[in-house]
Amino acid sequence: MFYGAVEAGGTKFVCAVGDQEGKIIDKITLPTEEPQTTLSTIYSFFDNYHLTAIGIGSFGPIELNKDKENYGEILNTPKLSWKNFNIYEAFAKRYKVPTFISTDVNTAALGEYRWGSAKNANSCLYITVGTGIGAGFVNMGEVLNAWNHPEMGHIHVPRHKNDTFEGSCPYHKDCLEGLASGSSIEARYKRKGKELGHEKEVWELEGYYLAQAIMSYSLILGPEKIILGGGVMKQQTLYPIIREQLAKLLNDYITIEKMEEYIVPPSLNDNQGIMGALALAIHGYAIKSSEGPVNT
Amino acid sequence: MFYGAVEAGGTKFVCAVGDQEGKIIDKITLPTEEPQTTLSTIYSFFDNYHLTAIGIGSFGPIELNKDKENYGEILNTPKLSWKNFNIYEAFAKRYKVPTFISTDVNTAALGEYRWGSAKNANSCLYITVGTGIGAGFVNMGEVLNAWNHPEMGHIHVPRHKNDTFEGSCPYHKDCLEGLASGSSIEARYKRKGKELGHEKEVWELEGYYLAQAIMSYSLILGPEKIILGGGVMKQQTLYPIIREQLAKLLNDYITIEKMEEYIVPPSLNDNQGIMGALALAIHGYAIKSSEGPVNT
Ligand SMILES: Nc1ncnc2c1ncn2[C@@H]1O[C@H](COP(=O)(O)OP(=O)(O)O)[C@@H](O)[C@H]1O
Ligand SMILES: Nc1ncnc2c1ncn2[C@@H]1O[C@H](COP(=O)(O)OP(=O)(O)O)[C@@H](O)[C@H]1O
Ligand SMILES: [Zn+2]
Ligand SMILES: [Zn+2]
Repeated sequence: MFYGAVEAGGTKFVCAVGDQEGKIIDKITLPTEEPQTTLSTIYSFFDNYHLTAIGIGSFGPIELNKDKENYGEILNTPKLSWKNFNIYEAFAKRYKVPTFISTDVNTAALGEYRWGSAKNANSCLYITVGTGIGAGFVNMGEVLNAWNHPEMGHIHVPRHKNDTFEGSCPYHKDCLEGLASGSSIEARYKRKGKELGHEKEVWELEGYYLAQAIMSYSLILGPEKIILGGGVMKQQTLYPIIREQLAKLLNDYITIEKMEEYIVPPSLNDNQGIMGALALAIHGYAIKSSEGPVNT
Repeated sequence: MFYGAVEAGGTKFVCAVGDQEGKIIDKITLPTEEPQTTLSTIYSFFDNYHLTAIGIGSFGPIELNKDKENYGEILNTPKLSWKNFNIYEAFAKRYKVPTFISTDVNTAALGEYRWGSAKNANSCLYITVGTGIGAGFVNMGEVLNAWNHPEMGHIHVPRHKNDTFEGSCPYHKDCLEGLASGSSIEARYKRKGKELGHEKEVWELEGYYLAQAIMSYSLILGPEKIILGGGVMKQQTLYPIIREQLAKLLNDYITIEKMEEYIVPPSLNDNQGIMGALALAIHGYAIKSSEGPVNT
């Protein structure tokens, strides 16, 4: 059986056809243009296969409340031609197979959960620290598709006592994204993250904020594994800093047996998104077919 | 079909027998003594019925990782005779019917989700602001039973700029519980919450901290409904204060259409725990029997 996987990003789309075991049979990458242009390329790709189900991980925000008639619609994006485009419906209608959608970070979490760094865990939080900060959560095989499309990157974290930077989030100023995203690093130091590799204090402060956020995520969601990815995490030095700060913050209240197995890098290189979209299709189809015959 | 429900608290146990529709047929309340004493009273109560399944909402922390051999064990409690007692196993072994367990706050959330203030919502967060602060989460009918038994009450919240109280949490000092629980109110003002009813600033500050925490919970979990219960919430004035503060914090980033329907009091009086334990039994049994014949 072949499954279709779509990783829909603001700059590029990756589409793949894969089997039950996560083997990718065919794959294309294309730039994100107008919906119709992008989709017609994707359709000619998928039309070569008889797909059993489709999984989509999409940029957003997306409407994920199944009770809403615009379920699967891309909402308030700055990519104006995609605003109010229903990406779920486009695939569901063309291929008439069970179609599943979640956020890009949720599918990345699912990819790592099924085949990557969290493959032996029961739950996993995937945090991307890139231009912005986002996170996705999988618990017992299910992604958390909350009604309100949570925006985990915008939680407030206690400020470091020596930090006077006002924060760069246009909505909240000094939320996590405003204090610790790649773009906030640029706003704060007037240089890009990768040019700051040798500035120890930069990464101490960055690690401090990420640990604060991870403390909240841990206490609220209780993930068994936390995976940190995205451009900023290319600073490998951040992993040990975060582990140490987090241990200090938790103050033995929650005992993490092996901190170096709790806070880990992704292991699917840049394929967690597309692998996760594939996992979404496979898992969604399995659940659906366990409920009775699936209409295709 | 009759279902057994157990609300296990540190001071009292409530046990009930109910039907599919949530009608309570019989109920007992008893003080929490030694496990064997307490259980023998409960057994003589349940032995009168032919139970189909049992749901337990327990004080804790409890081991909720199904992969652990001590699944269902009460861990680190100050009630020493219950420490390391496996409450799940006690019921599962005696009645040999499908038995389900979660935390007391998760079952309270489930009770309100199924029959109370959140009965029309897809997800709900139940926060209890009592001696301590705890919260439970239900999403699409399933409670979030995280491996790490999350302790939502202990998240950090940004301090109010005029607040100099160091915080009363023995682990973290100024986490949410250390700044806003009933016991922290006592530690801060040297008076009990209910004697402070007319002190406007007390409730302004309390509402400020609760709104900060709710902001994090909302962004991370995306609940459709937030229910605030527990002794401290008897100060009705807190509801409008929290709604107003939260609207300010979210700063239109996430639009809550009707704040007075988003932040609400519980509606099952003090029965959300026992009703939730009943719902846990009913829901768990329904899922289990959909997977195949249930061995009893
Ligand atoms: N080696 C590096 N060290 C620190 N920051 C980096 C590094 N490489 C990229 N970044 C930062 O990561 C951000 C881009 O993150 P990335 O995950 O690649 O993309 P996006 O979040 O836009 O999808 C930018 O802010 C960039 O400055
Ligand atoms: N009317 C009230 N106003 C403010 N605080 C109150 C009120 N009634 C009780 N409390 C506080 O609530 C806490 C007890 O909460 P409760 O939910 O009843 O119990 P517990 O959390 O111990 O199960 C105590 O700290 C008490 O001072
Ligand atoms: Zn923000
Ligand atoms: Zn604490």
